Amino acid sequence: MRLSQFHLRTEKETPADAEVVSHKLMLKAGMLRKLAAGIYTWSPLGLRVLRKVEHVVREEMDAAGACELSMPSVQPRELWEETGRWEKFGGQLLKIKDRKDAWYCYGPTHEEVITDFARAELASYKQLPVNFYQIQTKFRDEIRPRFGVMRSREFLMKDAYSFDIDEAGMAASYQAMHAAYTRIFSRLGLDFRAVQADSGAIGGDASQEFHVLAESGEDAIAFSTASDYAANVETARAAAPAPRPAASEPMRRVDTPTQKTCEAVAALLDIPLARTAKSVALMAGDVFVLALVRGDHAINPIKLAKVDGLADYRLATEAEIADYLGSEPGFLGPVAPRRALRVVADREVAAMADIVFGANAVGAHLAGVNWGRDLPEPDVVADIRDVVAGDRAEDGGELKLVRGIEVGHIFQLGRKYAEAMGFRVLDASGTATVPFMGCYGVGVSRIVAAAIEQNHDEAGIVWPAAMAPWQVAVCVINPKNETHVVEAAETLYRALQSAGIESVLDDRGLRPGSMFADIELIGIPHRVVVSARGLAAGTYEYRARRAGESENLDRETLFQRLAP
Amino acid sequence: MRLSQFHLRTEKETPADAEVVSHKLMLKAGMLRKLAAGIYTWSPLGLRVLRKVEHVVREEMDAAGACELSMPSVQPRELWEETGRWEKFGGQLLKIKDRKDAWYCYGPTHEEVITDFARAELASYKQLPVNFYQIQTKFRDEIRPRFGVMRSREFLMKDAYSFDIDEAGMAASYQAMHAAYTRIFSRLGLDFRAVQADSGAIGGDASQEFHVLAESGEDAIAFSTASDYAANVETARAAAPAPRPAASEPMRRVDTPTQKTCEAVAALLDIPLARTAKSVALMAGDVFVLALVRGDHAINPIKLAKVDGLADYRLATEAEIADYLGSEPGFLGPVAPRRALRVVADREVAAMADIVFGANAVGAHLAGVNWGRDLPEPDVVADIRDVVAGDRAEDGGELKLVRGIEVGHIFQLGRKYAEAMGFRVLDASGTATVPFMGCYGVGVSRIVAAAIEQNHDEAGIVWPAAMAPWQVAVCVINPKNETHVVEAAETLYRALQSAGIESVLDDRGLRPGSMFADIELIGIPHRVVVSARGLAAGTYEYRARRAGESENLDRETLFQRLAP
Repeated sequence: MRLSQFHLRTEKETPADAEVVSHKLMLKAGMLRKLAAGIYTWSPLGLRVLRKVEHVVREEMDAAGACELSMPSVQPRELWEETGRWEKFGGQLLKIKDRKDAWYCYGPTHEEVITDFARAELASYKQLPVNFYQIQTKFRDEIRPRFGVMRSREFLMKDAYSFDIDEAGMAASYQAMHAAYTRIFSRLGLDFRAVQADSGAIGGDASQEFHVLAESGEDAIAFSTASDYAANVETARAAAPAPRPAASEPMRRVDTPTQKTCEAVAALLDIPLARTAKSVALMAGDVFVLALVRGDHAINPIKLAKVDGLADYRLATEAEIADYLGSEPGFLGPVAPRRALRVVADREVAAMADIVFGANAVGAHLAGVNWGRDLPEPDVVADIRDVVAGDRAEDGGELKLVRGIEVGHIFQLGRKYAEAMGFRVLDASGTATVPFMGCYGVGVSRIVAAAIEQNHDEAGIVWPAAMAPWQVAVCVINPKNETHVVEAAETLYRALQSAGIESVLDDRGLRPGSMFADIELIGIPHRVVVSARGLAAGTYEYRARRAGESENLDRETLFQRLAP
Repeated sequence: MRLSQFHLRTEKETPADAEVVSHKLMLKAGMLRKLAAGIYTWSPLGLRVLRKVEHVVREEMDAAGACELSMPSVQPRELWEETGRWEKFGGQLLKIKDRKDAWYCYGPTHEEVITDFARAELASYKQLPVNFYQIQTKFRDEIRPRFGVMRSREFLMKDAYSFDIDEAGMAASYQAMHAAYTRIFSRLGLDFRAVQADSGAIGGDASQEFHVLAESGEDAIAFSTASDYAANVETARAAAPAPRPAASEPMRRVDTPTQKTCEAVAALLDIPLARTAKSVALMAGDVFVLALVRGDHAINPIKLAKVDGLADYRLATEAEIADYLGSEPGFLGPVAPRRALRVVADREVAAMADIVFGANAVGAHLAGVNWGRDLPEPDVVADIRDVVAGDRAEDGGELKLVRGIEVGHIFQLGRKYAEAMGFRVLDASGTATVPFMGCYGVGVSRIVAAAIEQNHDEAGIVWPAAMAPWQVAVCVINPKNETHVVEAAETLYRALQSAGIESVLDDRGLRPGSMFADIELIGIPHRVVVSARGLAAGTYEYRARRAGESENLDRETLFQRLAP
């Protein structure tokens, strides 16, 4: 490719409305242009990178024996009603009415469509296992699209769906995809981690996320120093606490006139924050619930919702709080409520003695509170908190926290969709049986942004080789006046291409400073400068994108350096 | 590829609801599965063929210097309002309201989006010419989707848009696309023709369609025996008629009590149909118009609408006809109307003498009518009819008619979109000027169907080489019992793959009859059978898909025959 015949348009200024570095650099490099909120055009440069990712994903999916197909983006409401997701999927589902007033949606995912396809195409265990995948544009109507293609509404996704006759088969298909994803992200040159995850709205039995590690990541990931345990903080577990110590203090009332937070109360009493406990008032149906976590912990809403009866909890109103506790937020606690309620205590709170709770009276807390003596044992003891850095892991190690960007997610769905949609195949004994499904997503367009979050410097993007738009930029100094330099650069460019080294010739005639700035900004891994001076000396000026200095190399050494 | 690890599912029965052969065969071969009206899933087999087409299109677009990018499918209403097409595009535009009640559409075409991109990215003539293209899923909400992917609602399209500083540049870009399309359809092995076309709703100055010739085609195409003139009947022109002969008959009234059509009147009078003329009553605004064509001709609505003042004509009501002519349909004519009207005569009618018209009285016609003597010369003389086979062409040849399936369309748009959207670039003199655009579409998914319409026999599809899912099928006879046959077939399959001959191994273990039927149905160009008997004789049974008989070939001859 000659840049003079390519559409490259970089920006000198950093765009004001971009919040994260990948979005800024993609706009500066001219990879993207915004059409509407969360909707972007990929320029020729951006598309080259996107296609590189797509290529690696496709090769590894094919190598794993998956069959590529192509499902429609517009999907009929009736299918989504079979699984109940027409309503349950929520506001992200972009609903569309056609000219005949029939309802459709723009597919945000394809469990319903593939199950419909499978129930028509698959009749026997002999056709299983099978794994269908596609690489396709999806739409999710994000309420707050942001960070460019990191959280856009229209995006490119690889989605795969496996069908097996039994649970063991599903587990094997799942493992094959785990291995394929590991190869994909390794080939793409990304620093990533597979972590246990909550399966969320997709549902099912087991799931793992693949995260590109980057400080700007939206997700927190906990991992253990003692094993390869890693989990999204949404679902990560610490070891159970040590047994509860004996009570050593009497319960007493303390004045806390303005102290409405555990931090303020602990400061006033001059005790560690971990000696206090937070009481969060909830309604679950018509049951009033008090959820308790230690003062230095945070409630994990996903874990909380898994407690029996709390699937659809909401925060209690001030009126409800006044009714059950006779107090107001800031001073709540489980001791002596006005009306019967349900106490859900985090494991750590249940293991505490001499606790500080709110006294259910404005301006007062209780200290030295002990389970069994001052109030009944909790109704439920469960893990309902976020882990924190330094927690002991279940494997005995220490939990550490890093941030990650989710770029892949694999699920064991079990029979959920097949059951709901009446999909059965005949097993070896001739009995109609509901098959086991898995589903496996890769955020193809998000990977491009995530790779930049992890690989950039002050000059711009630093692409991993597999994602670079070209491996080598051949830069021509002063092409308008120096014909022999242009010819030498052309010759070098063609030789590189012939040697299988994907190259671009920068023959735009920019001054060296602007040209080099562009080539660094767009992240080309290798730069070779062809100049009259270098040619006179028989050398090319070579610089790797990640290197601090350039070197003058003769042709042979240059080719050795660039050999793929 | 081993078929045992591929998802192939053919149907024995011909699907009842498919009307055209391509749709029937695509369903029988298991290439497609319907999800909703005009919305299809492409199976792994179907997608392989679709990708082959996509590959050829992409290679030729790249070779022509076009830059691939990727625009969103969801487009904001505001852009479409800039060109007025939010309303004008009509019911095919699938409108979508998002969760914030903002309006979008699912892009049926991308003139607005690319012009928006261009006005942000292109500022100078130095960046021109440029041609952007994408291969992308589009949606048009067809009122009657039919014929499978021939006229589906969701479909795959290559759309390209060129920008030039002047009209000569636009013409050159257009010619480059004409050449690229010619290469695309030639490489795909299709019998096609480029024809002059009406530019329709896209608008602009000049346009040509590329048609795959097939009897089942929806379009009629006229071509000349004397040159390469070819045009869609929508726009095709015949030579002007010979000068009008002198009048030779007096005007007289003839009784036609039940004769309401030209055919019936000609039969009654025992004269050629070409001696009669049809009068069609129209309203154009508040002007009553009588459009006249010869009895053996048909009015061409597209040509008619191009007559000054007739852009928005409609048929007149019976009440309007009674008001202006004092008669009723079946007996209308331009002689002695009750009120002033406008007469628009086809060139052929204007060149007739001794014409038979309706008498504007029920049960009566006038014969021997002559222009200038019995009624004034027509207000307008224009070409407003469809050409018919046998017409004299403007180049002196004879016009012949064939049927075609439109698979490509190229347009010179001029400044229409750039003007409407305020897009200007600086020309060489530093003046802001509106650039000239072209747009160029290929119906990628429709090509698959069109190729089948042109290439099939009673056994199934007969793919042109460039579109075949695989070039060679290696069929194993009795794989379950004959290990050495399986091994020999595997060896042959791998040798073919190594020689660059894309092959598929049919190791499914079907009986020969079913296996051969599948391989013929899905249209593989070459079949090689590996059997115990053949191996004993040192031969493979070879048959080309288009050949009547198979041959037994030794390995060397086989490879010579299959060499790409």
